[in-house]
Amino acid sequence: MTGLDALTATRGVLYGGDWNPEQWTPDVWREDVALMRAAGVNLVSVGIFSWATLEPELGRFDFAWLDEVLDLLHGAGVAVDLATPCASPPPWLAHRYPETSSVDAHGVRMSVGSRNHFCPGSQVFRDHVAAVVTAIVDRYADHPAVVMWHIGNEFGQSCWCDLCAERLRTWLRTRYGTVDALNEAWATAFWSQRYSSFDEVVPPRAAPYLHNPAAELDFRRFTSDQLRDLHRLQVDLVRARSDAPVTTNFMNFFPGVDQHVWADDVDVVADDCYTDPSDPGSPARAALAHDLVRGVRRGEPWLLMEQAAGAVNWRPHNVPKSTGAMVLDSLRAVAHGADGVCYFQWRASTGGAERFHSAMVPHAGPDTDLHRAVRAQGALLQRLRPVVGTRVEARVALVFDWPAWWAGELLPARPSSRLGVVDQLAAYHEPLWRAGIATDVVPPSADLDGYDLVVVPSLHAVDDASAANVAGVPARGGVLLVGPFSGVADEHARVRRGRFPVPWAGVLGASGEDWRPLDDAGVTVTSDRYGAFTATTWSEHLRSDGADVLATYGDGDLAGHPAVLRRTHDDLDGGGQAWYVSTVPPRDVLAAVLADCLAAAGVTGPLADVPDDVEVARRGDVLFLLNRSRSPQVVHLPGPATDLLTGDVVAGELHLPAEGAAALHLAPIERTP
Amino acid sequence: MTGLDALTATRGVLYGGDWNPEQWTPDVWREDVALMRAAGVNLVSVGIFSWATLEPELGRFDFAWLDEVLDLLHGAGVAVDLATPCASPPPWLAHRYPETSSVDAHGVRMSVGSRNHFCPGSQVFRDHVAAVVTAIVDRYADHPAVVMWHIGNEFGQSCWCDLCAERLRTWLRTRYGTVDALNEAWATAFWSQRYSSFDEVVPPRAAPYLHNPAAELDFRRFTSDQLRDLHRLQVDLVRARSDAPVTTNFMNFFPGVDQHVWADDVDVVADDCYTDPSDPGSPARAALAHDLVRGVRRGEPWLLMEQAAGAVNWRPHNVPKSTGAMVLDSLRAVAHGADGVCYFQWRASTGGAERFHSAMVPHAGPDTDLHRAVRAQGALLQRLRPVVGTRVEARVALVFDWPAWWAGELLPARPSSRLGVVDQLAAYHEPLWRAGIATDVVPPSADLDGYDLVVVPSLHAVDDASAANVAGVPARGGVLLVGPFSGVADEHARVRRGRFPVPWAGVLGASGEDWRPLDDAGVTVTSDRYGAFTATTWSEHLRSDGADVLATYGDGDLAGHPAVLRRTHDDLDGGGQAWYVSTVPPRDVLAAVLADCLAAAGVTGPLADVPDDVEVARRGDVLFLLNRSRSPQVVHLPGPATDLLTGDVVAGELHLPAEGAAALHLAPIERTP
Amino acid sequence: MTGLDALTATRGVLYGGDWNPEQWTPDVWREDVALMRAAGVNLVSVGIFSWATLEPELGRFDFAWLDEVLDLLHGAGVAVDLATPCASPPPWLAHRYPETSSVDAHGVRMSVGSRNHFCPGSQVFRDHVAAVVTAIVDRYADHPAVVMWHIGNEFGQSCWCDLCAERLRTWLRTRYGTVDALNEAWATAFWSQRYSSFDEVVPPRAAPYLHNPAAELDFRRFTSDQLRDLHRLQVDLVRARSDAPVTTNFMNFFPGVDQHVWADDVDVVADDCYTDPSDPGSPARAALAHDLVRGVRRGEPWLLMEQAAGAVNWRPHNVPKSTGAMVLDSLRAVAHGADGVCYFQWRASTGGAERFHSAMVPHAGPDTDLHRAVRAQGALLQRLRPVVGTRVEARVALVFDWPAWWAGELLPARPSSRLGVVDQLAAYHEPLWRAGIATDVVPPSADLDGYDLVVVPSLHAVDDASAANVAGVPARGGVLLVGPFSGVADEHARVRRGRFPVPWAGVLGASGEDWRPLDDAGVTVTSDRYGAFTATTWSEHLRSDGADVLATYGDGDLAGHPAVLRRTHDDLDGGGQAWYVSTVPPRDVLAAVLADCLAAAGVTGPLADVPDDVEVARRGDVLFLLNRSRSPQVVHLPGPATDLLTGDVVAGELHLPAEGAAALHLAPIERTP
Repeated sequence: MTGLDALTATRGVLYGGDWNPEQWTPDVWREDVALMRAAGVNLVSVGIFSWATLEPELGRFDFAWLDEVLDLLHGAGVAVDLATPCASPPPWLAHRYPETSSVDAHGVRMSVGSRNHFCPGSQVFRDHVAAVVTAIVDRYADHPAVVMWHIGNEFGQSCWCDLCAERLRTWLRTRYGTVDALNEAWATAFWSQRYSSFDEVVPPRAAPYLHNPAAELDFRRFTSDQLRDLHRLQVDLVRARSDAPVTTNFMNFFPGVDQHVWADDVDVVADDCYTDPSDPGSPARAALAHDLVRGVRRGEPWLLMEQAAGAVNWRPHNVPKSTGAMVLDSLRAVAHGADGVCYFQWRASTGGAERFHSAMVPHAGPDTDLHRAVRAQGALLQRLRPVVGTRVEARVALVFDWPAWWAGELLPARPSSRLGVVDQLAAYHEPLWRAGIATDVVPPSADLDGYDLVVVPSLHAVDDASAANVAGVPARGGVLLVGPFSGVADEHARVRRGRFPVPWAGVLGASGEDWRPLDDAGVTVTSDRYGAFTATTWSEHLRSDGADVLATYGDGDLAGHPAVLRRTHDDLDGGGQAWYVSTVPPRDVLAAVLADCLAAAGVTGPLADVPDDVEVARRGDVLFLLNRSRSPQVVHLPGPATDLLTGDVVAGELHLPAEGAAALHLAPIERTP
Repeated sequence: MTGLDALTATRGVLYGGDWNPEQWTPDVWREDVALMRAAGVNLVSVGIFSWATLEPELGRFDFAWLDEVLDLLHGAGVAVDLATPCASPPPWLAHRYPETSSVDAHGVRMSVGSRNHFCPGSQVFRDHVAAVVTAIVDRYADHPAVVMWHIGNEFGQSCWCDLCAERLRTWLRTRYGTVDALNEAWATAFWSQRYSSFDEVVPPRAAPYLHNPAAELDFRRFTSDQLRDLHRLQVDLVRARSDAPVTTNFMNFFPGVDQHVWADDVDVVADDCYTDPSDPGSPARAALAHDLVRGVRRGEPWLLMEQAAGAVNWRPHNVPKSTGAMVLDSLRAVAHGADGVCYFQWRASTGGAERFHSAMVPHAGPDTDLHRAVRAQGALLQRLRPVVGTRVEARVALVFDWPAWWAGELLPARPSSRLGVVDQLAAYHEPLWRAGIATDVVPPSADLDGYDLVVVPSLHAVDDASAANVAGVPARGGVLLVGPFSGVADEHARVRRGRFPVPWAGVLGASGEDWRPLDDAGVTVTSDRYGAFTATTWSEHLRSDGADVLATYGDGDLAGHPAVLRRTHDDLDGGGQAWYVSTVPPRDVLAAVLADCLAAAGVTGPLADVPDDVEVARRGDVLFLLNRSRSPQVVHLPGPATDLLTGDVVAGELHLPAEGAAALHLAPIERTP
Repeated sequence: MTGLDALTATRGVLYGGDWNPEQWTPDVWREDVALMRAAGVNLVSVGIFSWATLEPELGRFDFAWLDEVLDLLHGAGVAVDLATPCASPPPWLAHRYPETSSVDAHGVRMSVGSRNHFCPGSQVFRDHVAAVVTAIVDRYADHPAVVMWHIGNEFGQSCWCDLCAERLRTWLRTRYGTVDALNEAWATAFWSQRYSSFDEVVPPRAAPYLHNPAAELDFRRFTSDQLRDLHRLQVDLVRARSDAPVTTNFMNFFPGVDQHVWADDVDVVADDCYTDPSDPGSPARAALAHDLVRGVRRGEPWLLMEQAAGAVNWRPHNVPKSTGAMVLDSLRAVAHGADGVCYFQWRASTGGAERFHSAMVPHAGPDTDLHRAVRAQGALLQRLRPVVGTRVEARVALVFDWPAWWAGELLPARPSSRLGVVDQLAAYHEPLWRAGIATDVVPPSADLDGYDLVVVPSLHAVDDASAANVAGVPARGGVLLVGPFSGVADEHARVRRGRFPVPWAGVLGASGEDWRPLDDAGVTVTSDRYGAFTATTWSEHLRSDGADVLATYGDGDLAGHPAVLRRTHDDLDGGGQAWYVSTVPPRDVLAAVLADCLAAAGVTGPLADVPDDVEVARRGDVLFLLNRSRSPQVVHLPGPATDLLTGDVVAGELHLPAEGAAALHLAPIERTP
């Protein structure tokens, strides 16, 4: 049973948002609760930024208002995801204890007046967090409205203060045992960085030139672990008094915390997902984010904790969603495994830094197109009860993890800043998404046995065990597809010596000796299979050690050298295949490569001949069709099915209106013949 | 009587510049004074950066050199605008009292070696300012050369130090009385920012994320007020001993000080105006700046204190003015109400940070085209004596104020950084300027009764009283034109709840529910009246509540919704009209809208059929014609007039040479028939 | 005898690179030394970043590993350039003595974890440097492998700490004697910056606006001098025990140190030169850099200490060299006077910040194209023994110096940031380089007697003596060519009063009164001699005072004024010519001007009708031909010659393969007829 099951069993798809009632008078609370009820809202997150209201002065708590709020919600049948409020400590804390505020890499202590200014390493801060969380849990653990706990908010900051430096040293002592081991891992012999004692280590503060990459990598690990400590401190306090599931809102591709490490600290994986409506690639990116989030806990249903109903406020220019896109974003999340879709926030703030962030109830009130769409969506989501708790069954895995991302994209002085890890992931994911192929994003240490195709678009750093795990795919009959600059470094960002990718050269039947970022003009690649094309950004000096050369560099320094290779089952135990793509091909070529890999793996999409603008995604027995275009689209169905969104049985030509959707329940069809 | 009257009565148009004689030897002083006399210079500003020369060591004053300088000037008939030197305290002050130097938002204390490094909140600094100002005033209050006082220079900096923090808290206590009132105004319930005491408030220093917008807005108000205190401290010292008018040089659209608040602290409004010769929009922007400056004290003649004779030195690439443009810039200022045109600076510095800023006497000396033009201009300006003291009579007002600018353009996390307040002001001003229509830029609290057309291009934040003031325009028969994203917030930057613009939805007969910044492609707008056009940047989801829909969004999310609306007199008491433009139309469409508004208001330009490159501006009985093109232009005059610049009577076709001008005295013409 | 003679006499061209063996185990050392031997490596730099390995704790030295390394190298016949390790002090030093770390202009103390974080002004740091250098020198001065000393690495940083502030004040006291003299030199009368005591002076730390330019200029001088002190401290310690030559690696056009001042502190001028393979202008820039380096010590052979064999790691996108370009880069250096070509680094680091910097032995090992090219290059370089010790004989000088660069390009608030000093130098150098004309880059104080053409592309600031030195060129029959914005300021960046260029207006027969940076459109220039062309960026308001006007501004403010002038021998004692170019002409026009100047000076290139893509450079009796294109090229030779690279005698048509080269020994040819 997953953490969400108890909640969704009675409620169906969860629907709601952050509600910050401390901003409003009680009459607004009553209006809000009535509006929630009318909109089908069944879950709100409360108290995320309430510390200063709950503890207006040191040690003096004021719970009366929250009592009333929770009672009101409970009375209306709206369940509560109650927050611990550590994300924004009250001004009095920093005023009394300056050490509770974080310090940046330049030594500047962060000021109050925003949020997230706390130092996660300050014991004083942790003590005050424990005090307020204890008080909240003591009071509300048994409140019938409270069905889930929301620990903090969007953990992710770093601190370079002396307190954190001390904790970093302790963390390193634990990790390495001896300073010699640290010196070896960090390659401190270079640039005279050898530490004679752990005492000499400091966080990567402002320096005149490039920092040691392994030190930066470990600082990111430490930061994630230190935030995790702060998180677990609160989880423990909650669990001591309450059986309700705990969660915290992750932010999909956010570098601050390693969610794979955190996964088992929560009962429910929750995600904040803010698509950019001005980016046509946004739906694909959102789907990728969902596939990542679903993979954090091995495919469990998850909760879309925050999204925007319209525009956000933090981009330089914030184009809003259409109401149609708002609904599609929610349905996409459900199709990719979410059992709930929530928003930041229920009612738009009149003041504060997010006053121009859209909300489910806009400034202009409920008599608006936006709120009407919110209400209609509530009704729609209730019809999706059959999908609740079901799984997305994926036969394709995309490999990604945080340390490899940090090492491959965020450390200084790499061969090229133009070869982004997440961009590469997105490039390999997009053709899969277009074909409606379910894909799990998983770490390289995951159990890969269930996957017929394993794609490693960009995994710069990998430890030996994970490398072997990936390398084992073809041996058991699977297809492995590896992208450029993968397998290059070990877990300390040290380049592996030998022909790259050292751990996979054997299975790939190919190896390289030089990475060659390309001039803006790119390079011509010739291929009998894929035609001639221009590749960009990156090339590699490779040779085949047994693999078939499917594409060859046609000009430049590498003319005549292989660009894309495939080692087939003739040559491999287990009958699998291993592919290597050493450059950045155009979208259609990469799609063709992936199509070949899918064919080799025997993986097909759920529906053929779908128009370009219609997304297809299957979850359990339900096939979602999302028309993201502004014009109607026709989809040809192989047989009759029931559209959960309308209750209609559809067959043959399904007409999707502009920005319209269907959720076809396939089970009956499959049972029929 | 205005502050300038006594000065201009005997001198006509004031002409001169900053003179920094402490850089030169006495023989250069003598050459300079002779050159000034030859050039018709009648006013120089002296002593702006003289503190270190006047008080070379703490408490030791050296006035001998200044005695000689003032006597020399007086002997030559050049009047002196004597400065208080607070803008750049001597190095010994920071050396002895580090607290007199300001601190930035990151906690970095500013160093000596530049200027404006002082902390305006330091009492030690204020005491030293008082001492040096007292010494100067005591010595020179009765000097016959001194006809005006120049307090400091270009006030505008901010300081985040602990002393200023303490002053900020005092200022807030005065403004809000209770910390609860502050919490309410700042909406601190959001993000857990509630203050339990004023003691906890600090300036908006470096923070990990967005600052509270109301706190930032008040910090800007406080900064302006604190500088004003420093200014008034000096004004009081001067006025205690001298009856000569005081001034300080503002910088038109500079965000540092709220000139509308400062207006009555000075006797003369002075402005520094640096046009960018490489920007073809520069003349229009200069005219807008002049209309702003003139509006600061209700249309009083003002003084152009600083401009450049050629190039400035602080842009990355400093294209100089032509000598023709130099004269046009001066005449434009006079046409827009200036009674004097001065420069930074008289003689170019050989050293220091402004050594490449042009001057009236360039490095190459007086035998240069530039200086010959300076001399010729002196003669020209003397011929403009008839305009001195006269008023620009404007029937059109543009509404602008500093807090609304701060709130609408400078606070973080707005819907779009592409919708600039001053850019919008300029867009609505430009067609008026092209038509030669006199326009006053005024605050929303101004008496609007004299204006037939009131334009509110972008007034994001407005308090209730000012909002009512603006809303009253149509009721008394005037035409009101409101641009997008206006009337949105109150004086604390809190969004007004309800359909926007909340305070004006009634008078406009229209209201909205969503701001929708546009993709780069913009949106098609259809209009029977204005034709189809592409609007950019911004749109709004509106409905008519009784107004005529003049233009409609043609595609996108808002297809079919109104884009431009007009409520006519049929519908309004008083016979006025109220217009609303919810997007950014192309220049020609906006010009057509303004033409309609002008027609409705019965406002016409002073001259028809003027070539595009000829500016027309009327002041009193004089019509200025400025040909800003590099080719001759012909203007058709309705009747004979005397060109003050030549003394000639002109009629019919007036031939303006390239970059040439005329100043036609209309009074006799009007008397003739 | 130059510092390199003793080394090259037995070894021929020096070949090798930085070797950082502390990163590797002894078995790798043995493999490396064997590979070096196979590649013809005869010199490696060792110990540059070895401080933390040599002195792992305060006062405890570990030399055993270095003993073994040096013995191994000596046994293999590889000579050692042994470093003093001051560039990167061990972490324990900063941990014990925080004052040994530098502080930036914002007051932030630099952290360990990178390199170059030391404060050059800290006496504690200097004492520790002295201790470690003494220990190294004592141990290895007599080691037979050690043939040269490498002092520190890439000196160039600045520090704004209080210790450096105190040293700055001492330096200023020495430079100026009295504070009045400083005030005069720095023009502190402007902006009230007059110092009453040296005690008040601080480095140019963070300030609210532009810093005093003379203060910034002197801070750059001081910084260079302070680093020089640190360098000389070590040189003295070395020379007290060793007769081997000392060197340090400069970085050609790097602003940190004034190499002309440092020149005589070293025995060998060494340079780090990193061309950008993605920039087609890179070969020309490299040749310019070489001409600069060779000029630092009056044409002495020099050592290319660092270059990249493939890609660097510190650009955002690092395109690698081809192996052909790698060889051409080396040959170009030799052709321009280098007696050795070395690399950073011998073997690629697995960890640390430069793990993606290419090396002579890549990660993939010696069985790679890159290493094979390294080995082949070793053999090739041995064939160039005849050029060792010979001179490049240049009849053309380009004038450049560091203070004029600082003043003309790096100080704030100049007329245009688009007129770069080094860019201008490159623009005037390129046509000379294309024609194969040898050119020395020399300071304005150099002995110019040997030069028939002296080009001053951009010399913003110049003292009187140097100005007179330059002005004397035509008087002794030479040709002087001066570019725009030259001769403007004195050595304190004070603009010289009068018609510019004040010190050269006489000899040029021309003078100006106004610098006029151009709009993006540029300006048309008409010329009977050069045709009409569009000049960009910059123009000047000039008049001829006797010079011939060769080109005239055709439109804009300066229409009809001279743009290019030439004063001929008819008019000048000594029969020389003086040219002035006041704008930035297109490349072909500037080439035509330079061709005219060369003709007037009687300077011709070594070979006519060379294809565009073939570089020609003569050194001693050897003519280098470098085909930088990817296609074969044909060069027509006037007579037979021996190609040193192949040993073949070639004549008539010489076929150069793609990226191929020849080194023709001309001596026999010249002796033949």
